[in-house]
Amino acid sequence: MRQNAYVAGVGMTRFGKHMDRGMKDLAGEAILAALKDSGLEGKDLNAAYMGSAATGVITGQVCVPGQVVLRGLGIGHIPVINVENACATASTAFNQAATMITAGLYDVVLAVGMEKLYHEDKQRTFDVFTGAVDVEDMDGVIRNVEEEIRAAGMEPDLEGAGKTRSLFMDIYVTWAVKHMKEYGTTREQFAAVSAKNSYHGSLNARAQYQEELTVEDVLASREVAWPLTLPMCSPIGDGAAAVVLVSERKARELGLTDGGVRVASSVLGSGWDYTDADSETFPEVIAKQAYEEAGLGPDDLDCVELHDASAPSEILYYEYLGLCGKGEGGPLAESGDTRLGGRLPVNTSGGLLRKGHPIGATGTAQIVELTEQLRGVAGKRQVEGARVALAENGGGFIGKDAAALVVSILTT
Amino acid sequence: MRQNAYVAGVGMTRFGKHMDRGMKDLAGEAILAALKDSGLEGKDLNAAYMGSAATGVITGQVCVPGQVVLRGLGIGHIPVINVENACATASTAFNQAATMITAGLYDVVLAVGMEKLYHEDKQRTFDVFTGAVDVEDMDGVIRNVEEEIRAAGMEPDLEGAGKTRSLFMDIYVTWAVKHMKEYGTTREQFAAVSAKNSYHGSLNARAQYQEELTVEDVLASREVAWPLTLPMCSPIGDGAAAVVLVSERKARELGLTDGGVRVASSVLGSGWDYTDADSETFPEVIAKQAYEEAGLGPDDLDCVELHDASAPSEILYYEYLGLCGKGEGGPLAESGDTRLGGRLPVNTSGGLLRKGHPIGATGTAQIVELTEQLRGVAGKRQVEGARVALAENGGGFIGKDAAALVVSILTT
Repeated sequence: MRQNAYVAGVGMTRFGKHMDRGMKDLAGEAILAALKDSGLEGKDLNAAYMGSAATGVITGQVCVPGQVVLRGLGIGHIPVINVENACATASTAFNQAATMITAGLYDVVLAVGMEKLYHEDKQRTFDVFTGAVDVEDMDGVIRNVEEEIRAAGMEPDLEGAGKTRSLFMDIYVTWAVKHMKEYGTTREQFAAVSAKNSYHGSLNARAQYQEELTVEDVLASREVAWPLTLPMCSPIGDGAAAVVLVSERKARELGLTDGGVRVASSVLGSGWDYTDADSETFPEVIAKQAYEEAGLGPDDLDCVELHDASAPSEILYYEYLGLCGKGEGGPLAESGDTRLGGRLPVNTSGGLLRKGHPIGATGTAQIVELTEQLRGVAGKRQVEGARVALAENGGGFIGKDAAALVVSILTT
Repeated sequence: MRQNAYVAGVGMTRFGKHMDRGMKDLAGEAILAALKDSGLEGKDLNAAYMGSAATGVITGQVCVPGQVVLRGLGIGHIPVINVENACATASTAFNQAATMITAGLYDVVLAVGMEKLYHEDKQRTFDVFTGAVDVEDMDGVIRNVEEEIRAAGMEPDLEGAGKTRSLFMDIYVTWAVKHMKEYGTTREQFAAVSAKNSYHGSLNARAQYQEELTVEDVLASREVAWPLTLPMCSPIGDGAAAVVLVSERKARELGLTDGGVRVASSVLGSGWDYTDADSETFPEVIAKQAYEEAGLGPDDLDCVELHDASAPSEILYYEYLGLCGKGEGGPLAESGDTRLGGRLPVNTSGGLLRKGHPIGATGTAQIVELTEQLRGVAGKRQVEGARVALAENGGGFIGKDAAALVVSILTT
């Protein structure tokens, strides 16, 4: 929907493997940083939307994780709503917080994404990645994947799917091979996405992986499931990211209405089975709505953070978001246009592929990156003169679509 | 907050042990019943707030349970927000749905509570009940319980706490013994609550337990943790309850503005460590706000559904909600005033003690009962001429208070 809320503060932890740190510690760091950045205190908060997707099952803190974290910081007595929408969890928290402010209900709302995925018992983590799919229809999902791969003229190898690897990567394989078949997209183009994002990640101290990779490095890496190699797949990780959102009234008080970061639109949708290839896909519908409600279009964008859970995903989302025409995502990836210094830098943070992907934290981490870009404080990753930014984040998988998808547009 | 939304439809399953039924099946039944009751269809929905607390960890459907359920019913393409607030989960879904409608953002919103707690592997279920407490401070919680019991002049027996029984029951023991010491409340009074609610449950075909118990039956039952016997403790269970909420505009279309059930207020708060015994407690603050925003008081109420997770809880909440003075909860329980036919019937559904308590489903089930009361269709459980009803539901435990608490007032 059309929004009218301001980003007053942002904060996040480094994403990565934090075996010695719990959820309270990680989320606490992010929240305190966001509050400090906003110039506000815990007592100024009117409500909090707390997102985590798999932390409960991993850590055993099944219920009220948001309250547990906030109490550790001395923050209480406000409405706390724990939300979950798989990978779109924190984007949902952000969307709901912005919506409540736009509706005039609150002046200061906290939106947090936090996730602990690493655990001594690796099986716990793995179970989540199969459980994130409709488990009552797991066979159906695997059948779909097989059919898609066969339809692209290839022989499926699903031996390890949902067993030795996350089934999500097999889903991305189907997206990849379909795009290869329809548009001649190449593995080199997928690798170009990973290489670009590794360059961006090398400039980001909060990225899980900071090593820069060439296209050749990416292609020579271990194969996860053809055509995907390891750097074409986002890793699991721990981390947290927090955003303090404020009303226009409060933004005026804080001096943000002139040059501050404003949420122009944020659209949350849940899709399934948009099967007609000729009509608009689900992500296209949501993106179009976000553009319309912001009164902006793809040509107005200066930078984008999108859900590159796999390298092919980034190419598909170039197209869904209207950054290029249908089938032109592969060439766009290779063109350099989406690299820092290019026409429209995408995933300057390193994206999910390199900054990392602690599921429920990813959505607000995108907002952290874009806020810094719009404030002009992104350092070596700065997109010169950035004024308009878009965040896209999808979560879960149901039927043939994302179970949840959020597209938000920020301006300054 | 002050609300302006109407209850257009309600539906729920019987609560209980549904070993042969999954979450999709249970929630589907409740949602279809609520839609049918509202005269609306799935395609009329603008958004859905889907609550479940422990289903993910029990069933393995860790992420996007709401979308999974809705897809099974052919409902998609709308914002779906999965929410969790422990026992207050479905009340939070209801509160958020009503708030979005009051704010003018939507015309038709679904609020669902759904829960699967029974599983072949009983340990899974048990883990949830210890995990529902801040697990990073479990020792602290147990220490608090010990101190409270000692302060009441009794010897704590916490051997089985959080091991052979839910730690929650030990927390209720501390509430109980404190009240006994301060006000002379008796075990007979606790038993009176259970007996009354068993009578109400005996009239409710959807109640998990429909056997009527006398005060003597309750006292003679197996002791869980002194002074609580088994019928003084709410059971675990499976079930779902759904509510279709609509805007005033839509309510007019549906002919609900004249005599339909209206949400007058719904307040969500999260409390911790209101330690000063002389000041208002957290539940009192939230209840007061709900009364003020509805422009109503305890004397206006015709029936109440409250969170009787244990029999002493009901007595404490009589006081917190202003149904009687401090320390008068015990005598009120024995007076018959809160029994069907009495001055102010409480938990006519049978309450959590007898209707059952599938954690994340309880909040919307309270709304189902109160809606039927206000519509005058509660059959043998009907409170004559009911016009004003209150629902109270607390969830989780943090510091010394509920992690989340929702008080909603409905009128006709």
